[in-house]
Amino acid sequence: MNRPEETSAHILARIREQRPLVLCLTNTVAQEITANLLLAVGAVPAMLSDAGECADMIRACANALLVNTGTLSAPQAEAMQAAILCAGEEGIPWVLDPVACGLLDFRTRVCREFLQTSAPALIRGNASEIIALAGASGEACRGPESGADSSSAIEAAQALARRTGAAVLATGQTDYATDGDETIACANGHALMTRVTGIGCAMGALAAACAAVASSPLEAAIATASILGIAGERSAEKAPRPGSFAAALLDELDAMTPDDAAAFSRLSPWTGA
Amino acid sequence: MNRPEETSAHILARIREQRPLVLCLTNTVAQEITANLLLAVGAVPAMLSDAGECADMIRACANALLVNTGTLSAPQAEAMQAAILCAGEEGIPWVLDPVACGLLDFRTRVCREFLQTSAPALIRGNASEIIALAGASGEACRGPESGADSSSAIEAAQALARRTGAAVLATGQTDYATDGDETIACANGHALMTRVTGIGCAMGALAAACAAVASSPLEAAIATASILGIAGERSAEKAPRPGSFAAALLDELDAMTPDDAAAFSRLSPWTGA
Amino acid sequence: MNRPEETSAHILARIREQRPLVLCLTNTVAQEITANLLLAVGAVPAMLSDAGECADMIRACANALLVNTGTLSAPQAEAMQAAILCAGEEGIPWVLDPVACGLLDFRTRVCREFLQTSAPALIRGNASEIIALAGASGEACRGPESGADSSSAIEAAQALARRTGAAVLATGQTDYATDGDETIACANGHALMTRVTGIGCAMGALAAACAAVASSPLEAAIATASILGIAGERSAEKAPRPGSFAAALLDELDAMTPDDAAAFSRLSPWTGA
Repeated sequence: MNRPEETSAHILARIREQRPLVLCLTNTVAQEITANLLLAVGAVPAMLSDAGECADMIRACANALLVNTGTLSAPQAEAMQAAILCAGEEGIPWVLDPVACGLLDFRTRVCREFLQTSAPALIRGNASEIIALAGASGEACRGPESGADSSSAIEAAQALARRTGAAVLATGQTDYATDGDETIACANGHALMTRVTGIGCAMGALAAACAAVASSPLEAAIATASILGIAGERSAEKAPRPGSFAAALLDELDAMTPDDAAAFSRLSPWTGA
Repeated sequence: MNRPEETSAHILARIREQRPLVLCLTNTVAQEITANLLLAVGAVPAMLSDAGECADMIRACANALLVNTGTLSAPQAEAMQAAILCAGEEGIPWVLDPVACGLLDFRTRVCREFLQTSAPALIRGNASEIIALAGASGEACRGPESGADSSSAIEAAQALARRTGAAVLATGQTDYATDGDETIACANGHALMTRVTGIGCAMGALAAACAAVASSPLEAAIATASILGIAGERSAEKAPRPGSFAAALLDELDAMTPDDAAAFSRLSPWTGA
Repeated sequence: MNRPEETSAHILARIREQRPLVLCLTNTVAQEITANLLLAVGAVPAMLSDAGECADMIRACANALLVNTGTLSAPQAEAMQAAILCAGEEGIPWVLDPVACGLLDFRTRVCREFLQTSAPALIRGNASEIIALAGASGEACRGPESGADSSSAIEAAQALARRTGAAVLATGQTDYATDGDETIACANGHALMTRVTGIGCAMGALAAACAAVASSPLEAAIATASILGIAGERSAEKAPRPGSFAAALLDELDAMTPDDAAAFSRLSPWTGA
């Protein structure tokens, strides 16, 4: 791997050049900001409901798939299952964002079925979601915020990465990206990002866009954390309250250059506590 | 009850301290602004689709429930029914926002069934919705605006409060809060609040957050009307057009202190025409 | 027809006077911006899920209907079918926005069934969607952007208009409005409009509002393209990045006068290449 800062810069540049189409099967609360965040960074969002159409879209032109369980229903789980199967057949990367996994039984079971269907490129979650998905006993997720500090999920993230072959991005005040072997900490970000609904969910879509153009899932995870985190820091300087912050975040993603991504990434190897 | 202005201040302070988790079963149009309004005021939103998961969430960690019928479907009505039943069993307050009740038969019937399932803490609606739910012949609701003045619904609101045990908040240019005994008028608010979709629906979620921390449903209704109304007045001064007003409203809710709520509330007893 | 510029001015003035209620059966991604765009321009949005309620709403008080297939599901197709049938019976105009028609089989088939049910007043789509719906072999749509230039769809648009009796609005860098006989090019608009999700979909809702008050579908199509395009140009001057642009667009629609619509429309007859 290149120096991590260069990784973020290269991936941002490649998204702008290749404009990957990301099929987002996500919760209805976060759909709009998810689509707008992908557009702001230079990717192309697509959102569908019908299982057959999801499979058709992946075969036709999708470059990556996001599966987010925020407002999961039985019909949506079926569409997600069809899309994941198809993504595996077509060899396009898919990202799992297991919202509230561990807190609610239906989605916890469904997330585990998804992992059996086809190996994801990347799994993004807060500490309690990663711990629950890894099979350890997790503290319950509480809406947009996890009770647990993200550092408490590092071992679970590494175990989950080794078991699934995915890169795992455990997010919180510090984000941790791991492929089970190497683990990188990203210190970028701002507390206001937890005060706007859907930014965490949109991060999963950004991870899918990054995975579509990256050399490895771990590089995609690192780029996701640093690019979004830098945009959060910059927009918080200009718009310190949540309503205007949401618009500023999209503006900053649009304005960010690969050089910015290299210059402002705060990434460091994590070598144990 | 304290002086009403103090009530609004105390409830805002308590939301910031206790951060109630509000499960919002609401229409898909208003989900994003509803979640963002709760986050701006200091509460924690959660949104789900599946009936079983709704029940699980209420048992696990919800502090209040909002039921809004804006884009009602048969599966959503089933999830709402399960959630209301559970809220009654767990003793957490639930709020009914009977959007377009009286205009459309399916939801009018379903809203009445909800009231039979478990007593709500609070019912929020415009004049025609409150009149229809109270069983009188209502003027048809017309999208985000009611044809009827809110004062025309005061008697229906009082009757509905006495019948259901809920506080009723009939909203319009002036908002009226009643528990069937005492009735308080709130003059806060701004016409721009009707020019942004979902603010009325988000008001129902704010009512649920207030109900989670208030001493009584009537206090929750008063605080809801004055806190949101003050934020509307302040944001309209800074952003007099609807696109920027929506972001400014969230910024003002975030910035509002309990002292602001006490100082700027315009509440008065209603003693009859 | 009046001079086209006067048409746009007259239609904007009539929307402000008559405040048409537009029932929008649209994708969940674009619901919020669609409702906010209608409110900003002076119309009244309504959104529903249940098939029976859609029919009831059209019989009760809707002045126009939008059908947009962006996140089509089988239950939604059923609700749309019921609404279209009812719109035909009640004689209110309906607009088809056949998102991704031609790319995905399910919706391509469903869109054709819709056209058999009742004649639309207006069809809005990008080049590939219009070409596909016209029955020619279309280039696949790619998310929010069409691979094909809108001028490549002029002949298909004219043929589709003659076959269905609808005005057809083929949108792109230049928009083309045709009733199969007369064809008008609209040069208004800005590239930022493709960087915010749902603006194209909201354009379909604006078309429905225009159709509710216009003397002819072609006039509605012309007014739609120029009113939205002018607002896009003006907001891009003030807010050159996508996050703040979205709010500015709504502010500009709210601020636009009929005189502005007349003065800044860039409309010209299209007389062949």
